[in-house]
Amino acid sequence: MLTPSLSISEESHRQDSANLLIFIILLTLTILTIWLFKHRRFRFLHETGLAMIYGLFVGIILRFGVHLPQDLNDITLTCAMNSSPTTILVNVSGRFYEYSLKGEVRDSKGHDVPNAEMLRKVTFDPEVFFNILLPPIIFHAGYSLKRRHFFRNLGSILSYAFVGTVTSCFVTGLVMYGCVVFLKVIGQLGGDFFFTDCLFFGAIVSATDPVTVLAIFNELKVDVDLYALLFGESVLNDAVAIVLSSSIVAYQPEGDNRHTFDGSALLKSLGVFLGVFSGSFAMGAATGVMTALVTKFTKLRDFPLLETALFFLMSWSTFLLAEACGFTGVVAVLFCGITQAHYTYNNLSAESKSRSKQLFELLDFLAENFIFSYMGLTLFSFQHHVFNPLFVIGAFLAIFLGRAANIYPLSFLLNLGRKNKIASNFQHVMMFSGLRGAMTFALSIRDTATYARQMMFSTTLLIVFFTVWVCGGGTTPMLSLMHIRVGVDTDQDNSVTAPDGMTQKSTKHESAWPFRLWYTFDHNYLKPFLTHSGPPLTSTLPACCGPIARCLTSSQAYELHDEDTELILNDDSSLMYSDMTVSTDAHGMPTPSTSQAGLYSLARTSDDPLDRELVFGGTRLVLPTDDPSDPLTSFPPPPPSPPLSDPLRHRV
Amino acid sequence: MLTPSLSISEESHRQDSANLLIFIILLTLTILTIWLFKHRRFRFLHETGLAMIYGLFVGIILRFGVHLPQDLNDITLTCAMNSSPTTILVNVSGRFYEYSLKGEVRDSKGHDVPNAEMLRKVTFDPEVFFNILLPPIIFHAGYSLKRRHFFRNLGSILSYAFVGTVTSCFVTGLVMYGCVVFLKVIGQLGGDFFFTDCLFFGAIVSATDPVTVLAIFNELKVDVDLYALLFGESVLNDAVAIVLSSSIVAYQPEGDNRHTFDGSALLKSLGVFLGVFSGSFAMGAATGVMTALVTKFTKLRDFPLLETALFFLMSWSTFLLAEACGFTGVVAVLFCGITQAHYTYNNLSAESKSRSKQLFELLDFLAENFIFSYMGLTLFSFQHHVFNPLFVIGAFLAIFLGRAANIYPLSFLLNLGRKNKIASNFQHVMMFSGLRGAMTFALSIRDTATYARQMMFSTTLLIVFFTVWVCGGGTTPMLSLMHIRVGVDTDQDNSVTAPDGMTQKSTKHESAWPFRLWYTFDHNYLKPFLTHSGPPLTSTLPACCGPIARCLTSSQAYELHDEDTELILNDDSSLMYSDMTVSTDAHGMPTPSTSQAGLYSLARTSDDPLDRELVFGGTRLVLPTDDPSDPLTSFPPPPPSPPLSDPLRHRV
Repeated sequence: MLTPSLSISEESHRQDSANLLIFIILLTLTILTIWLFKHRRFRFLHETGLAMIYGLFVGIILRFGVHLPQDLNDITLTCAMNSSPTTILVNVSGRFYEYSLKGEVRDSKGHDVPNAEMLRKVTFDPEVFFNILLPPIIFHAGYSLKRRHFFRNLGSILSYAFVGTVTSCFVTGLVMYGCVVFLKVIGQLGGDFFFTDCLFFGAIVSATDPVTVLAIFNELKVDVDLYALLFGESVLNDAVAIVLSSSIVAYQPEGDNRHTFDGSALLKSLGVFLGVFSGSFAMGAATGVMTALVTKFTKLRDFPLLETALFFLMSWSTFLLAEACGFTGVVAVLFCGITQAHYTYNNLSAESKSRSKQLFELLDFLAENFIFSYMGLTLFSFQHHVFNPLFVIGAFLAIFLGRAANIYPLSFLLNLGRKNKIASNFQHVMMFSGLRGAMTFALSIRDTATYARQMMFSTTLLIVFFTVWVCGGGTTPMLSLMHIRVGVDTDQDNSVTAPDGMTQKSTKHESAWPFRLWYTFDHNYLKPFLTHSGPPLTSTLPACCGPIARCLTSSQAYELHDEDTELILNDDSSLMYSDMTVSTDAHGMPTPSTSQAGLYSLARTSDDPLDRELVFGGTRLVLPTDDPSDPLTSFPPPPPSPPLSDPLRHRV
Repeated sequence: MLTPSLSISEESHRQDSANLLIFIILLTLTILTIWLFKHRRFRFLHETGLAMIYGLFVGIILRFGVHLPQDLNDITLTCAMNSSPTTILVNVSGRFYEYSLKGEVRDSKGHDVPNAEMLRKVTFDPEVFFNILLPPIIFHAGYSLKRRHFFRNLGSILSYAFVGTVTSCFVTGLVMYGCVVFLKVIGQLGGDFFFTDCLFFGAIVSATDPVTVLAIFNELKVDVDLYALLFGESVLNDAVAIVLSSSIVAYQPEGDNRHTFDGSALLKSLGVFLGVFSGSFAMGAATGVMTALVTKFTKLRDFPLLETALFFLMSWSTFLLAEACGFTGVVAVLFCGITQAHYTYNNLSAESKSRSKQLFELLDFLAENFIFSYMGLTLFSFQHHVFNPLFVIGAFLAIFLGRAANIYPLSFLLNLGRKNKIASNFQHVMMFSGLRGAMTFALSIRDTATYARQMMFSTTLLIVFFTVWVCGGGTTPMLSLMHIRVGVDTDQDNSVTAPDGMTQKSTKHESAWPFRLWYTFDHNYLKPFLTHSGPPLTSTLPACCGPIARCLTSSQAYELHDEDTELILNDDSSLMYSDMTVSTDAHGMPTPSTSQAGLYSLARTSDDPLDRELVFGGTRLVLPTDDPSDPLTSFPPPPPSPPLSDPLRHRV
């Protein structure tokens, strides 16, 4: 009685629900086991590794354990046409059914596998990863970036992420090309594998994963600079790998030229790479700035629900906007996350701050565990695996060499310029911690139509499993082997342990002038314009812009400034004397002392822990030093402040 | 340079992103306008009405404002086949493309409309409403139910929701059938319209919307009993309408019999209705109970992120489980929400409590506003509208009569049994506040393949617009016209104003014995078993179950109980004397005084505001009265307590 005649779409809807239910149950089991592991303080296996193991088990059960009768509704018919429209209408005895294009498929070989239909059904559309699961992970990475340490090491991070990833991509690609040629010579290659395929493989396996190792680092409170280097690199190289792989695909030579490599194609790829990257960056930053402006100039903060909803929607719209314009949504979302944390976060009400953090934390957690359990599942549910042992060995060698070619030469070059050297034990840990995760998987599953792509996908899965289980599990022993300090307070850093003069000098030298310029500009103009904090624009803009400045400056900026000055006055009057004159006598010129005043004051009043970190990064950069060539420090240095209990005062 | 050759699927992905972006921008605009309205305290238009207006504007622009060139990739081809498989492979010059079934379509008539393709594309798959947008709305309704007032009026609410909705469905159906026959006679009907179609229409327009009016009621703090009646009815009748409409569809006579109405089909429909409803209810309750057990017997509360994720996944799995088993996911989710709030909520950590509330609040807000702006959009983007003025007039008459046939006769019958009568002004407000909203829309857009369904859809849209704008906007004037009390404190209710003896008597008579039995069972066995609160099972279960009881009772239950007794002792020792003896001397028998002790104690210690409400509802039910036939009150009544400042003590 409860099973009335079901239409085909109802039947397929029930099947879809059941498939999704498998994943929900998997995630629930993973959560319970994670709890058990955390509860019993097991650290040899991270939650992502756990999720993969559960996925593996379910994959084995689906493949070998259950034997379902072949679904009768699933007869695959073939009809010949001359083009592939996005929609076709099928006339079935007078009734019309609409079909939509799902994509190109290879003629399915693997139909001898038991439960082939069911396995095909639990296989998600790869676009789900790019459009639904990756954006929250990447946004959260940007939003929760520890910006103080990130910006302090920005030069090195950018070098690793851009130069390093491209190097790694080419080294891996070349090694793989050698491997492929060798395989072809000994007759072990079952299909075409071009040089561009090798480069593509290099690009996708060069994306390191910010999740697994860093969760352990965070828990063990590993040295903050090492953490910043690894985190910054792995977040940014995801973006680099996406754009790199898509530009390799977009400009791969067609037809007979595929065996050679064309120089002009390389240049074109580079052009695409730069265009897409900067476009995505600009779009992400623009949406972030717009959100900041909206939250600043409306009183939306009186209604935290509306505010959170707006924040969520604007962040999501970045992704859609970038995708609609042909840029890369995931990259845009990363920079949007950084901008939102840097500006918008300051304008939010306390409730929205915690709401938005918790929301994105939850989304990130769910998406991550979903991807990792799905990875485990695909090892058995994917039906076109091509496992070639020699190719796999070659790939492991190639990623090892590629990672080494990224870390060691670049660290050597960076150490030439860095005062605060990247020690060799840091370099070894960075080498070891180059896990491959969600991004590598998503990039490799996106297209599994050709023989080359299928072999890449199977190999990539093995690489992810190996690095997550072995390198992820070995992180703790590796850290103790390399004598890396653990248990470091995040608000301190190792430069504090050096004598005061040394610290300031090394800090100053750590950052090149473009970054210092940017900090000053950001602090004096962008922050006051986009947020409620910072020095009033009336004091930083030239006098002629007075009316506009008054209009754009939040009333809170003045208040905060005054309150703050008082606070600091009571605290240490000798230090703040010059500040007083600046903040009350706003003569409208961006003098060095003004900017310093702003920095001091901001550091003391901002209620945003993220922001405070950055501001201190900023404060350190304009601190008076004995270098007379620095235009920002051409005023007498304040006397050193007495040691205070407030850990944030360490560097003042 | 930035536009490399795009594949078809990439092009369609960009188009999809752009379409979704339109909605995100719409929602963002809605949020900003809602803020403006709240800021300026405009109340004549609710946010859902606003969302609809924005949707309308965008619909007009898309239809008349933009003229896009016809998309070349969208040529619709036709090829004849004998069946409709879920997947077909299309051979395009040697490459295979996979197409998946989207559903049956009518041969599109409306291709003369400008921008037909684009309009078709902004039209979402109706299943999106059922599978993505409705579940969070309905779950949130169940989760945020004010259970004290809900349970106190449960009998009346169930009557309105079940008997009333079915009555309304049949009355509306019959009036519409009369209207359809008349239209056929005068030759104004352009296609088939069967009696089952009329009944289906009756079912979908009988679902009243819990959103719009109740937001206003909540803001104005309207009388709590009226609020509970309307809210309870509109939440439950959504569930009733879904199951009713799907059982009408499942058992409609085929072919020539469609013009008649078959008695056995009616009985079958009733069977389906009861089966699906009770199955969905059981599934929702079961998942809720399982979540409660998991959260009780693990220490998951130490990790709020894991806890919230588990809570979210378990709630979502209810929906999928019900759908996979052929029940109704939305109904299951409603009862899951109520169960989660009643049991699981007590076990959550403070952080998870606020996290889960905020998460579901946000999802509910976004889904609701999305549906309403989509409604506005469809008025212009849907291309198969059939507006028949006489049918529309008939429909408005029918829903008026249907609503009247629900409210007035039922209220009369209920008032025969109720001590606390439903006054006639309450009845008028309930009559007036039967807005149609998201559920009616979702049910009517689900199938728009036939002429009858298209006419229904167009008419339903007009009904929703009218009721949301006119009835929604007129709520405040209506309340003052009907002299309904506003500004009532939610924790008080109007019975408090009566003398003490009267209150207790009327309260007792309000609830029938099945509910009192349920309360006792729930309080003595279910709550202690599923949560950390309640009296220890050792004191409520028979002595022979001692070991099991000790095993299942949370240690917190004992602690809470003791602490609590002390607290109350200090407060009013005369009142609590009997409690002391019970809680220390747990002789294992479910005596009346035990249950009373438990009720008192719980009411004072539970940190859950929702829970406290219910318990007080419970407390009132077992309060000693002068009725000797009640087995629960066969002990001397405690002396009346002195008036306290705590509003929750009013009824003790």
